[in-house]
Amino acid sequence: MISAYQARCQARVDAALEKLFVAPREELTRIYAAMRYSVVNGGKRVRPLLAYAACEALGGEVERADGAACAVELIHAYSLVHDDLPAMDDDDLRRGQPTTHIAYDEACAILAGDGLQALAFEVIGNAQLNPQDAQTRLDMLMILTRAAGSAGMVGGQAIDLESVGRKIDQAALETMHRHKTGALIEASVQLGALASGRANADALEALRRYAEAVGLAFQVQDDILDVESDTATLGKTQGKDQAHDKPTYPALLGLDEAKAYAVALRDHALAALEGFSDNAEPLRALARYIVERRN
Amino acid sequence: MISAYQARCQARVDAALEKLFVAPREELTRIYAAMRYSVVNGGKRVRPLLAYAACEALGGEVERADGAACAVELIHAYSLVHDDLPAMDDDDLRRGQPTTHIAYDEACAILAGDGLQALAFEVIGNAQLNPQDAQTRLDMLMILTRAAGSAGMVGGQAIDLESVGRKIDQAALETMHRHKTGALIEASVQLGALASGRANADALEALRRYAEAVGLAFQVQDDILDVESDTATLGKTQGKDQAHDKPTYPALLGLDEAKAYAVALRDHALAALEGFSDNAEPLRALARYIVERRN
Repeated sequence: MISAYQARCQARVDAALEKLFVAPREELTRIYAAMRYSVVNGGKRVRPLLAYAACEALGGEVERADGAACAVELIHAYSLVHDDLPAMDDDDLRRGQPTTHIAYDEACAILAGDGLQALAFEVIGNAQLNPQDAQTRLDMLMILTRAAGSAGMVGGQAIDLESVGRKIDQAALETMHRHKTGALIEASVQLGALASGRANADALEALRRYAEAVGLAFQVQDDILDVESDTATLGKTQGKDQAHDKPTYPALLGLDEAKAYAVALRDHALAALEGFSDNAEPLRALARYIVERRN
Repeated sequence: MISAYQARCQARVDAALEKLFVAPREELTRIYAAMRYSVVNGGKRVRPLLAYAACEALGGEVERADGAACAVELIHAYSLVHDDLPAMDDDDLRRGQPTTHIAYDEACAILAGDGLQALAFEVIGNAQLNPQDAQTRLDMLMILTRAAGSAGMVGGQAIDLESVGRKIDQAALETMHRHKTGALIEASVQLGALASGRANADALEALRRYAEAVGLAFQVQDDILDVESDTATLGKTQGKDQAHDKPTYPALLGLDEAKAYAVALRDHALAALEGFSDNAEPLRALARYIVERRN
């Protein structure tokens, strides 16, 4: 079930994203091409799916969440472009393709990432792309800036870089992940919920708890796959965390306990949705998928 | 006169900026310190001055433009941090101090720049920091995202990188500068005007023409100073454009004609403000200052 829903969300957000990369003049052809290359790449679109599924869980029409879906994917895409740079994770391969700084060059990759971040906020502010009222668009903007910025995703990447090669405990690992990946996953769900036009405080809090558990489960499973999968299936270099001496859940808890933790987080996520109708079925299916996926 | 007004704007925006860099938790101390280092650095604050002066030119109270002033300076600061990176201009010195990637490290500088960009949009969206109505804040957001992004500043940097070592004509040089520096200078004036709460279409168009001329004059004068000044006065490496074989106005027009062009642009800027009251005096003084400055 999740794969059909995922394919629908992927097609929907890909069509919306595709329209964003038309260079307004010839001189800008290359930078727009590099931005497009960094985004239109067959990605799984987990964050857009969360935005769409949260919108639908509250009974909102799916098209209301197009802006939210594009914006969170643009933030995610820019973070990958910068994360892959030689000064950061130095990765040549992403989803089986050369990373942006390999396909273009380092300077162009830095600028493409910068351009993608600005575009994400432009999409949130734009009434055509994100047809919510002014106050809702501003609420969405504030959620996204905080999730993406130094108190969220960027801060998490900074913590991650500082913790390489250090012995850290589970609390510290979780602090890092809550910032690095959790913040944007929570924002995806909250933006989708706000886009529905039907969010109340209780629903937002339940969805926040759902997203928190799903975000951690996603990361635990990523760490497990880095140990258990292979480069071809992952579409990125397997064993990289270990090679870089990065702190991971399997390294910290052992592989079996890491798997049990992922399952427990899935169950937390499902419990958070107990009061929700069948409209929340895609969110539930995603929680199950996350711990079952192989890439 | 400009130096007193400049000092007042500088103190005002510096006080507002200073409050933005309180790390919300201990793990984030270093990234917040790197962001602060990149911003709180004795910069001239030309863009904040333009925002304040445009607000006051329309009779708005200066404090209404604090949000606009901070936001444009944060965008400018992030662009310098990324521009100075080894993969870009590879500059070790900025305003006489080590650049962010020298004082911290490259990865931290990339992330600090990313965090500063997100913070700029957070400031625009935040009702406390930017006390305009929701629709005005959204209008400001859209102006800033377009000016900062790939259709504006980021696009201009991409054009700049592609034109190094190439023979380009004055039209191509101007296209580059209109994007690279002009877009954010125009946005500074427009944001300040919107912040006043008293902008109408005619005033915005006059201010746009003013900013366009001032932005180009600023760049022409920068190119002249790169030839004529010295490293100590500039606070950055003199002669760098020539050493990198960058296209400049003196190289294209000759030094004397470049100087005449800067003066003509100043006069265009002053002409655009003809219908404005004495409240526009700081904007007029800035136009004069730009072609007279030595750093």
